[in-house]
Amino acid sequence: MKALVYHGPGAKAWEDFPMPALLEDTDAIVQVDTTTICGTDLHILKGDVPSMTAGRVIGHEAVGTVTEIGAGVKTIAVGDRVLVSCVTACGTCRYCRAGSFGQCLGGGGWILGNRIDGTQAEYVRVPFADNSTYPVPPGVSDDELLMLADILPTGYEVGVLNGQVRPGDVVVVVGAGPIGLSAITSAQLFSPSLVVAIDMAASRLEAAKSFGADVVINNAQQDAVSAVRELTADLGADVAIEAVGVPATFELAVDLVRPGGHVANIGVHGTSATLHLERIWARNLTITTGLVDTYSTPTLLRLLTGRQVDADRFVTHHFGFDEFDTAYDVFSRAGETGALKVVLSK
Amino acid sequence: MKALVYHGPGAKAWEDFPMPALLEDTDAIVQVDTTTICGTDLHILKGDVPSMTAGRVIGHEAVGTVTEIGAGVKTIAVGDRVLVSCVTACGTCRYCRAGSFGQCLGGGGWILGNRIDGTQAEYVRVPFADNSTYPVPPGVSDDELLMLADILPTGYEVGVLNGQVRPGDVVVVVGAGPIGLSAITSAQLFSPSLVVAIDMAASRLEAAKSFGADVVINNAQQDAVSAVRELTADLGADVAIEAVGVPATFELAVDLVRPGGHVANIGVHGTSATLHLERIWARNLTITTGLVDTYSTPTLLRLLTGRQVDADRFVTHHFGFDEFDTAYDVFSRAGETGALKVVLSK
Amino acid sequence: MKALVYHGPGAKAWEDFPMPALLEDTDAIVQVDTTTICGTDLHILKGDVPSMTAGRVIGHEAVGTVTEIGAGVKTIAVGDRVLVSCVTACGTCRYCRAGSFGQCLGGGGWILGNRIDGTQAEYVRVPFADNSTYPVPPGVSDDELLMLADILPTGYEVGVLNGQVRPGDVVVVVGAGPIGLSAITSAQLFSPSLVVAIDMAASRLEAAKSFGADVVINNAQQDAVSAVRELTADLGADVAIEAVGVPATFELAVDLVRPGGHVANIGVHGTSATLHLERIWARNLTITTGLVDTYSTPTLLRLLTGRQVDADRFVTHHFGFDEFDTAYDVFSRAGETGALKVVLSK
Amino acid sequence: MKALVYHGPGAKAWEDFPMPALLEDTDAIVQVDTTTICGTDLHILKGDVPSMTAGRVIGHEAVGTVTEIGAGVKTIAVGDRVLVSCVTACGTCRYCRAGSFGQCLGGGGWILGNRIDGTQAEYVRVPFADNSTYPVPPGVSDDELLMLADILPTGYEVGVLNGQVRPGDVVVVVGAGPIGLSAITSAQLFSPSLVVAIDMAASRLEAAKSFGADVVINNAQQDAVSAVRELTADLGADVAIEAVGVPATFELAVDLVRPGGHVANIGVHGTSATLHLERIWARNLTITTGLVDTYSTPTLLRLLTGRQVDADRFVTHHFGFDEFDTAYDVFSRAGETGALKVVLSK
Repeated sequence: MKALVYHGPGAKAWEDFPMPALLEDTDAIVQVDTTTICGTDLHILKGDVPSMTAGRVIGHEAVGTVTEIGAGVKTIAVGDRVLVSCVTACGTCRYCRAGSFGQCLGGGGWILGNRIDGTQAEYVRVPFADNSTYPVPPGVSDDELLMLADILPTGYEVGVLNGQVRPGDVVVVVGAGPIGLSAITSAQLFSPSLVVAIDMAASRLEAAKSFGADVVINNAQQDAVSAVRELTADLGADVAIEAVGVPATFELAVDLVRPGGHVANIGVHGTSATLHLERIWARNLTITTGLVDTYSTPTLLRLLTGRQVDADRFVTHHFGFDEFDTAYDVFSRAGETGALKVVLSK
Repeated sequence: MKALVYHGPGAKAWEDFPMPALLEDTDAIVQVDTTTICGTDLHILKGDVPSMTAGRVIGHEAVGTVTEIGAGVKTIAVGDRVLVSCVTACGTCRYCRAGSFGQCLGGGGWILGNRIDGTQAEYVRVPFADNSTYPVPPGVSDDELLMLADILPTGYEVGVLNGQVRPGDVVVVVGAGPIGLSAITSAQLFSPSLVVAIDMAASRLEAAKSFGADVVINNAQQDAVSAVRELTADLGADVAIEAVGVPATFELAVDLVRPGGHVANIGVHGTSATLHLERIWARNLTITTGLVDTYSTPTLLRLLTGRQVDADRFVTHHFGFDEFDTAYDVFSRAGETGALKVVLSK
Repeated sequence: MKALVYHGPGAKAWEDFPMPALLEDTDAIVQVDTTTICGTDLHILKGDVPSMTAGRVIGHEAVGTVTEIGAGVKTIAVGDRVLVSCVTACGTCRYCRAGSFGQCLGGGGWILGNRIDGTQAEYVRVPFADNSTYPVPPGVSDDELLMLADILPTGYEVGVLNGQVRPGDVVVVVGAGPIGLSAITSAQLFSPSLVVAIDMAASRLEAAKSFGADVVINNAQQDAVSAVRELTADLGADVAIEAVGVPATFELAVDLVRPGGHVANIGVHGTSATLHLERIWARNLTITTGLVDTYSTPTLLRLLTGRQVDADRFVTHHFGFDEFDTAYDVFSRAGETGALKVVLSK
Repeated sequence: MKALVYHGPGAKAWEDFPMPALLEDTDAIVQVDTTTICGTDLHILKGDVPSMTAGRVIGHEAVGTVTEIGAGVKTIAVGDRVLVSCVTACGTCRYCRAGSFGQCLGGGGWILGNRIDGTQAEYVRVPFADNSTYPVPPGVSDDELLMLADILPTGYEVGVLNGQVRPGDVVVVVGAGPIGLSAITSAQLFSPSLVVAIDMAASRLEAAKSFGADVVINNAQQDAVSAVRELTADLGADVAIEAVGVPATFELAVDLVRPGGHVANIGVHGTSATLHLERIWARNLTITTGLVDTYSTPTLLRLLTGRQVDADRFVTHHFGFDEFDTAYDVFSRAGETGALKVVLSK
């Protein structure tokens, strides 16, 4: 088969690769019909993810067709079309028993395209298939469904639920890339009174508006803290969601919330940030970090089916499997290309 | 009357001071029978608390006798003996309606010995008396009760409840001074499987043991992170409570918890700390800060009356009002004197 | 002045009545600009509410203008236009400190038009004015605002929040009268996947549809339990909200939920119901009852101002103060008149 | 092998029975070293549990030794000594993913000694062995551990956690049999200010005292509602836990709690009860029912190991496997024999 193989920082190739085989009785082999590129894949290509070694297939999102299952797989069958989630789960360890599948101690967690071969390939081995795949529901397109592999549960769980968004809240999302837009989308499930998007790129703020942000702030041009203070009677936001992954945006998020407010970090960070405890020790803040657990995937499937979440609008570009180079190029130059999520199909 | 007046960094005096008078109809005047010194008062004397200006009376903890009440005071009467809480509450603003009295927007919060004259005096004016004082229950000594003015609700609310301690948890308390001991005391209300105390002073670790810590770690002598890992099958603690207020102890607390763990900061910080987001972004941590709200005071009164909380053991020294200089000296040299809380009585 | 006075079961009259006067320093006198009739007022007229004695003014909802305030009132002034909430709150007792104002032990709770004279009058005395009134926000009509005196916080708190409605849930509301419609309206703040309304009157089910119910079930014509089972893969609803107040509808609500589901009772009940513990002991149900606490009023004000809640559509009829008899008649024959809320203005 | 076989209402026999064999690859065969009798087993013998058919082996609690495992079993091995939990869990269905294993839709839940052959036998087949067994920890006796098969997680989860017991609470446990004592034991993990036990048998109230109840009320002799009112300044208890399973005790539990209080039903009920909605509709009550989910078993194992829970004292009688008749007799006449839990060992 063919797969997109990582060859160390800066290097990747769509090339011949051995067909995956069942290793455990709970594995399934899935023929990939559609996959996509995540911001984390760009981090991998920069060499930022040490657990991902050269020679391994990239990718952790897919919709595909089951071609083989281990003897222990019970809930899916050969021929089933399924969503392959970015998180796999043993279902038995302490964390899985508590629904924290992303922290699985039994061999799962985020391993696809990281600790094992991933989904940017014609076929992929999916461990713990019963707990890591979801049947494609009727009436949902592959494009939409693919957004539930990672980006939507991440924005919803790590941003909105960790941030404890409530009806009537003022919610600020720092960073209006795909993950920020996912947080903006899912925040609206809780009817905040105001969703504010902050970014330095005008095009991303345009996107934020079209995804439902009530107010956009270009913090290359204006002081975001003052602007949010003005919107909130000088108090600050109820919730700030960090969706970039650099120190400045995290520190901004902490500065934006009111006493008693919540800061939910989604961003993947490569360096430390400064926490101004001298300013916040008495402000009753709650700051959370997190990897997606995908416990919300069944809920999001219902919302997708019921058209309460519009996932289609995330997809800006389509490519064939033989166009991975172009797809990565378009996705990595999102500022110019306007790319949100790029979809690759066989 | 006499009062302990702050005269700028390093300077204070027990001297004549004008008798307080009612300013609002919700005020009460309380004759102070017993007061104590808080670590925050030492911060004030170092000049660390800019809202506290020279010429003001220090102190925010007292047990006393009501001598005068405003026309609007309904729940206490002249002659009543009361606990004066460190936090006063308007009872009407957004934060008070939500039980977050420490963040009161209506003129309350921590104002005694900070924004208005405090309790280290023969008399004190207590604003919003109905929401800021508690009748002395029968069978409870002034010494014990005084521990509910600040230290016990702080350890309980900001440490244990914010940290979400649960039965069976491994709870680490970083810093075994009075606030740390208060956290150790109140953590036991939730039956953790292990309470671990970390400090650099052997005498404080001895105190921690006598207050119920199961394990003590002297982090001047051993690596606390490794030690906690060993106790927790290499996973980390469920909850870490920071009770010192310097960057190193906060950063240690963050390093000590397991994925999904809670870090509850109690310490009063004068400088920023480094938050290693590159290590924790994917670890599902919850970090909280907070000023005490004293919403738990009625609960702690019940526990005190029922002998489920032993508050007496916090009191190591007694002085008269004319011995404030000695009392501050003993309290500020706690390492040598073994002082936990020093009590001053008329 | 004139007021609608209760004269015992079945008897009421719009007649001369003494002007209210300040009794406590926390009272305000409010000139009533607009009031409305609640289903509970019909219960009173049937003699079902023993705490309401003959000779007292009916009514617990109003928008008006402050004409006099006690010396202890701090947050409103003469001339202010305010919403008068159905619940008054002392702000100091155990329940008020916990935000449970409806259970106030300090003389508040639901007392207007019950234990003291109410709002169906030209003037009304409002106790604990600081905690019981809300300034009229700009851009909001009196009609809309009046819906926040009782009906909307009741549907939201006692129905939706007690029922713990979550995104993606199937929510069934039993009874599509004004309170049921309020629950249907506020349930949508949490983006359920399906809102199901059950009633026996076709006109009410029509109203439910126009208020956003996705599915309506006429349980005079079909078996509601089977119908909900069909909608939920035979599992049952996530949440059932009882909004009628008779045994049959409560028992139906309990039968409608899935294992682990929530039953939130809003209805005012005059007799006991049968709880089939033999069927539900092992089903992990949570059943709640409640009087509105109005802790959500500030949130609902934000949602009203931001147009996330449409309150106008509740108001079907307008009358003058001299038309109380007609208004009660129209409201009590809602099945024929299509009345939801009838508004009376000076 | 030998097993205790149910032969229809009133009939059982310790007799020859076919050895169990693996049916699914996730099954394990466990040689039973120790088992016990549950109150539910008495219900079965009365014919109250229709899902239990004649010819099936009784029992759902055991400690034993693994003798055979299916190909899909990963976390236990032949020769391991394990606790067999009363609840088995597929680990994959909607309920298992949410930690609600007792409601498993994938073939688990409470099935041992109910829908399949149980543990009162020399050998037992345990489905979903990875999610249904726990390795015996060092330093814990079989007697103690056996109490974690059902009774302790039931009292803790369905009584104490569902009832939301908090430090300082007044907790009333209605019924002081084994399950009530389990609730009394686990309530103390949250440091209530008062644990009150209610029963009609003096011997059970004696047991309640020795298990830590602060107050006991014999409701054959005095009015329990008045007695609890007196203990709570006429307000009622914070939490009432029903641990009997008849209408009168459930109705009493509802009458015992204060406004805003919690009623947690543990009892197995055979008939319906009367819910006095006319008295409670406005009291903000929360009433829960539930089957144990055993999500707390790992926590209880830590507490057992750490000696924070004393499980030994539940065991009052020991028997050999050939004494099942005597054991049932002693257990079913608990009033005379003083039996709490009777243990049978090979």
